[in-house]
Amino acid sequence: MESGLPEQVVAWRRHLHRHPELSFQEHATARYVESVLRGFPHLNLSRPTPTSVLAVLRGTAGPGRTVLLRADMDALPIQEDTGLDFASQTPGVMHACGHDGHTAMLLGAAQVLSHSRETLHGEVRLLFQHAEELFPGGAQQLVDAGVMDGVDVAVGEHLMSQIPTGVIVLRDGALLAAPDAFTLTIHGQGGHGANPHETVDPVVLAAQVILAFQTVISRQRDPLEPAVLSVTTIHAGTAHNVIPDSAQLGGTVRTLDPALREAMPRRMEQIVQGLCAAYGATYTFDYVQGYRATINDPATTALLREVTAQTLGDAVTIHPGQPNMGGEDFSAYLSRAPGTFIIVGAGGDGQAPHHHPRFNFDERALEHGLKLYVAAARRLTQPL
Amino acid sequence: MESGLPEQVVAWRRHLHRHPELSFQEHATARYVESVLRGFPHLNLSRPTPTSVLAVLRGTAGPGRTVLLRADMDALPIQEDTGLDFASQTPGVMHACGHDGHTAMLLGAAQVLSHSRETLHGEVRLLFQHAEELFPGGAQQLVDAGVMDGVDVAVGEHLMSQIPTGVIVLRDGALLAAPDAFTLTIHGQGGHGANPHETVDPVVLAAQVILAFQTVISRQRDPLEPAVLSVTTIHAGTAHNVIPDSAQLGGTVRTLDPALREAMPRRMEQIVQGLCAAYGATYTFDYVQGYRATINDPATTALLREVTAQTLGDAVTIHPGQPNMGGEDFSAYLSRAPGTFIIVGAGGDGQAPHHHPRFNFDERALEHGLKLYVAAARRLTQPL
Amino acid sequence: MESGLPEQVVAWRRHLHRHPELSFQEHATARYVESVLRGFPHLNLSRPTPTSVLAVLRGTAGPGRTVLLRADMDALPIQEDTGLDFASQTPGVMHACGHDGHTAMLLGAAQVLSHSRETLHGEVRLLFQHAEELFPGGAQQLVDAGVMDGVDVAVGEHLMSQIPTGVIVLRDGALLAAPDAFTLTIHGQGGHGANPHETVDPVVLAAQVILAFQTVISRQRDPLEPAVLSVTTIHAGTAHNVIPDSAQLGGTVRTLDPALREAMPRRMEQIVQGLCAAYGATYTFDYVQGYRATINDPATTALLREVTAQTLGDAVTIHPGQPNMGGEDFSAYLSRAPGTFIIVGAGGDGQAPHHHPRFNFDERALEHGLKLYVAAARRLTQPL
Amino acid sequence: MESGLPEQVVAWRRHLHRHPELSFQEHATARYVESVLRGFPHLNLSRPTPTSVLAVLRGTAGPGRTVLLRADMDALPIQEDTGLDFASQTPGVMHACGHDGHTAMLLGAAQVLSHSRETLHGEVRLLFQHAEELFPGGAQQLVDAGVMDGVDVAVGEHLMSQIPTGVIVLRDGALLAAPDAFTLTIHGQGGHGANPHETVDPVVLAAQVILAFQTVISRQRDPLEPAVLSVTTIHAGTAHNVIPDSAQLGGTVRTLDPALREAMPRRMEQIVQGLCAAYGATYTFDYVQGYRATINDPATTALLREVTAQTLGDAVTIHPGQPNMGGEDFSAYLSRAPGTFIIVGAGGDGQAPHHHPRFNFDERALEHGLKLYVAAARRLTQPL
Repeated sequence: MESGLPEQVVAWRRHLHRHPELSFQEHATARYVESVLRGFPHLNLSRPTPTSVLAVLRGTAGPGRTVLLRADMDALPIQEDTGLDFASQTPGVMHACGHDGHTAMLLGAAQVLSHSRETLHGEVRLLFQHAEELFPGGAQQLVDAGVMDGVDVAVGEHLMSQIPTGVIVLRDGALLAAPDAFTLTIHGQGGHGANPHETVDPVVLAAQVILAFQTVISRQRDPLEPAVLSVTTIHAGTAHNVIPDSAQLGGTVRTLDPALREAMPRRMEQIVQGLCAAYGATYTFDYVQGYRATINDPATTALLREVTAQTLGDAVTIHPGQPNMGGEDFSAYLSRAPGTFIIVGAGGDGQAPHHHPRFNFDERALEHGLKLYVAAARRLTQPL
Repeated sequence: MESGLPEQVVAWRRHLHRHPELSFQEHATARYVESVLRGFPHLNLSRPTPTSVLAVLRGTAGPGRTVLLRADMDALPIQEDTGLDFASQTPGVMHACGHDGHTAMLLGAAQVLSHSRETLHGEVRLLFQHAEELFPGGAQQLVDAGVMDGVDVAVGEHLMSQIPTGVIVLRDGALLAAPDAFTLTIHGQGGHGANPHETVDPVVLAAQVILAFQTVISRQRDPLEPAVLSVTTIHAGTAHNVIPDSAQLGGTVRTLDPALREAMPRRMEQIVQGLCAAYGATYTFDYVQGYRATINDPATTALLREVTAQTLGDAVTIHPGQPNMGGEDFSAYLSRAPGTFIIVGAGGDGQAPHHHPRFNFDERALEHGLKLYVAAARRLTQPL
Repeated sequence: MESGLPEQVVAWRRHLHRHPELSFQEHATARYVESVLRGFPHLNLSRPTPTSVLAVLRGTAGPGRTVLLRADMDALPIQEDTGLDFASQTPGVMHACGHDGHTAMLLGAAQVLSHSRETLHGEVRLLFQHAEELFPGGAQQLVDAGVMDGVDVAVGEHLMSQIPTGVIVLRDGALLAAPDAFTLTIHGQGGHGANPHETVDPVVLAAQVILAFQTVISRQRDPLEPAVLSVTTIHAGTAHNVIPDSAQLGGTVRTLDPALREAMPRRMEQIVQGLCAAYGATYTFDYVQGYRATINDPATTALLREVTAQTLGDAVTIHPGQPNMGGEDFSAYLSRAPGTFIIVGAGGDGQAPHHHPRFNFDERALEHGLKLYVAAARRLTQPL
Repeated sequence: MESGLPEQVVAWRRHLHRHPELSFQEHATARYVESVLRGFPHLNLSRPTPTSVLAVLRGTAGPGRTVLLRADMDALPIQEDTGLDFASQTPGVMHACGHDGHTAMLLGAAQVLSHSRETLHGEVRLLFQHAEELFPGGAQQLVDAGVMDGVDVAVGEHLMSQIPTGVIVLRDGALLAAPDAFTLTIHGQGGHGANPHETVDPVVLAAQVILAFQTVISRQRDPLEPAVLSVTTIHAGTAHNVIPDSAQLGGTVRTLDPALREAMPRRMEQIVQGLCAAYGATYTFDYVQGYRATINDPATTALLREVTAQTLGDAVTIHPGQPNMGGEDFSAYLSRAPGTFIIVGAGGDGQAPHHHPRFNFDERALEHGLKLYVAAARRLTQPL
């Protein structure tokens, strides 16, 4: 690796950190990324969507496979409180999830790979994605725009401030959940608070629905199959003496297993339907599937274990990790080709969690992630 | 009134108290009552059922109405613990509700009325009823046997140890509840306690039914219309690690209003049906109506207020009382003719409640009840 | 009665109906009432509060008791939709509860009584009250201002569009409920919707509180003692994937019995406290007692039954009526002296309910109410 | 391996299958095992408990480690319905979990190892355990008797009829759950079904506890950490019109993680305590920890993967499997030394599940299990 590259990656990262942009608004970020990439040879640059950048590099070592490397670029609506000298200069917006680091690492990989295309078979697509943080996400838009057409395998990375620097998590199978959302309106019949018998009370019915929903997790689910159902919002009524007409509930459902994911709204609606019938109420139930679960391909993961051991050696420990009920739109790429999402430990002592106003990560991890992108590209583009 | 009659009534009562008989088994009691009645003139005696006695007396003052006076005669399966010198001589059986007193009072009325039929219009039927304490009760059997055919008005009395002697409760409208009973079996699908997702858990479903039943009282009922729904029994499962196939619940429902009474099982079943549908369970729901609610006729009650004031004067206070969620099969007579059930205060200091091993009542109240029976007969048999 | 008075009362009522004013804002109404009263002799007029009027009349028939007659004057924030030619001329404000009629009837009574003070003992206070519709109500302010000082008995009337004209409800004991209000905030611990185990979920806890509150009515209350507990508002959470920190609930509690009224907040808080302890949550519970229950004095009511029969004869039927879980600040006067609140049937065919945009009442009832005010004043001021 | 040994293992298995014995009653089985073992050289036989057999074999290849191999021997109280010609000859008792196979495989391993001790370092303890099926189990008794003193590593095997023959499950970490049990009695205050306000209703309180327990699983547990809480029994009340004094509940709790296991009874009792306080009830809560969770040692498992691949080669597939919420007392040995519990696929088409009257397994799997015991002993006794 070129001497000085890690320092360059840190510099890119800090520039991005100073200038965060919200999801779907990454205009300056995309321009910056594009301008850096223009400094490297052999890259075929394009804008698949207004705020994303795709750099395509064909290897000259011979025919091979096509590999997508992805970094996300968007920031969050959080007021930074780190006191860093490179802290956000945009009030209320902050790179509080490490996407600045992802982008910088992939820029570094672009520099290395573009200067060594003779070591590369096939084709590498370096994709700087917009809008990971905001459903419906940028990944699906990019898939729809064709970035996955002809891709054989996809690799993404995520820095994690709560995992020690030096740990690389390579997990087979389910890694991140499918985060779905629902909205439920229970239509009862309002009336005077003194005359409940002339009403169909939607508040007491909503309470029963909430408790019945707990049994979807506690009774109807294989105890070994992770799932979460959280009713996070409930709103009904405005006056102390008026029983309202309706109650509105909302929440999130998280699953790893696709079959369980499909079953959840059916089970929930059966409960709502039964309870509404019990009281003569009606309902509207909207269920929106969010990102798919992120499920790593065991074969790709096995290759990446070898690559990681060869590339980073004793500098890191490979760990199978644990699934996490959070979600990621990297899963959109995995719906089109096998691949693996790599977790890169980037934790120093006392690091704040992601999405926190004092979030930061250990920049030493940037070198790990950069080298993994490069090595993964070289190994996975080789013919099978 | 004949001098010495109150003493005689006390003597009858104490004989009956010594020799209590359970519901539908009042053979010796009926023989005793019949033998006393045979000592009075002009009575036409019969046995409408094996353990009840009917004495019919026609007045000679002229044509009039037909009045039924009723006393119940059965005792309870309770071991007496009063220490009275006339305590029960039958182990495990006790007159713990005052029916011995009711019978003695009506015997006294028979003596007075049979010796003064020239003061009487129409017809008086003195009915010594069996089996008030045990559903389906003796009253309905007697109605079916024809004792109410041609009756214009019915009067019953009940001594109450918890109401002071000297208080006569004459209440318009609903006085005692209709005590109905239900049995509910929830049929789920059992299985191993470690694998709830392979079952339809009837225990968790039963818990939801029990809480939903509370809302029948708290939300679906006019707050001014009394009702009780008590789930008193629940049985499911035998082994710690086996989710059972079914859960069985039982309980009582008490209402005063006939329309609400009819609505209760419908509302309960709608809840059960909805909740079972919510989980794919099935159910069997049995609902048995017990005695009707005892609802006094305001016109008869008004006449009895006059009669009471004239007859007992300052010796008593007339009170409108309160309804009570207990039940009485006197309601069977009221389903065929108007009438009133009179509560006669018979409480001394520290009297035990009805159905208690140390139950007793103040015997001074026997004279009140006897005089009310006599005066009611004379007044209510008069032509309108 | 003066010929033409009923027409005058109708005219006053229609004027008031055209010019409704909200609670505590009855400035024009008070001026109008005062100007009418100035046309009658012997009245001692005052303004106990800025928008109420008190007219005191001393009888010349001799010494006697002091009687308060009360009419309320305020209107409601409702847009009238009756199409009447005397409909409200103030957008969004309407006499939709009949207070215009009450005021007109009491003006008529003032006219009659002031012209016949030789028929009157003692003292009559005709009180035109502000702000019955809006807690904390005008009645308590007037009591605090001394209007009840020296009063022996108080009488109020309320027209009812849902009760037929010609029915006068005179009820002993509890007539209208004490309408109290509560606000409950459950403080849990928020967090990410995917990680419930890192939170104390206030939504699921609120659901349990709501169902437990049902048992205060279904299990903890004498079934013969009316009470309502309605949770009418619940608000928690704003985002589908965020478990909120807290949930806020509100509602109304209605009782007739003062002891039960005092017990309700204790029982509710015990449940909240236990459930919060079960989950490590905390709470704030605010309970505000509204108007007292309106409990009629049986002796006054008995006198008013006589008065009604003598005054209105066959024109009306006297009915004991039913309690109602609504509330009235007339109870403030009854906390200082015995008295009776009279319900005056004022229903024609198809009348809309009170507080409805098409509310109206049968103006023929105005004569009933006027005559009852006059006769009550004459009878109740007589020495005992 | 000696020619004919697999046939011999099948013969032993069928003899044991014909003569099943219940837990703690394995007298004939232990005698039979001991008599077979007496036919092999170099074994030091003992009876650590009345119905278990321990055979100790010292290797002569040099010093090494001490390895425990365990097979369980007890049968179940099930009436066999297989129609096999070697079906149980004891009515109502059946080897319905494959322990006959485990015992036969370990006998086969004893034969091989005892004839080849020159290939063996250290010491092998072949333990034929009683009473795995009945808590508190035989394993803990044997640990208490000292069988684990000086043991470096423990290996057990379990045939599985629902897993195809040829699959060997070697799982790191948690494999089987800790199956705990609880009994909860809620002490309310009974009374007449018509007077709930005079009682503390334990049935409605039990229903709330059952629903609150669901939240221990749905809200208080890391969604990635498996756990089950099943309320499997509830008993309260005997008469339709009597609210009972108490309700008794029981159930099972299953966890894999020891820290979660310790937390479960605390969380449950906090809920019970809070809900009882909410209603003025009391409780008794008994919680009995059953077998520990069976947690395999990753290092031992890694060695066994190598051993399995070398020994059985293409005949089998190694699979990481899934945890299972069932329990095993093999965990008692693992509380004293690291080790691994191996699942040996033994399923043919349409095999019935374990504990079923038609349970059987594919006897071809016996050779797999036997060879694994032998190879594990040889490998794991080698010095580190």
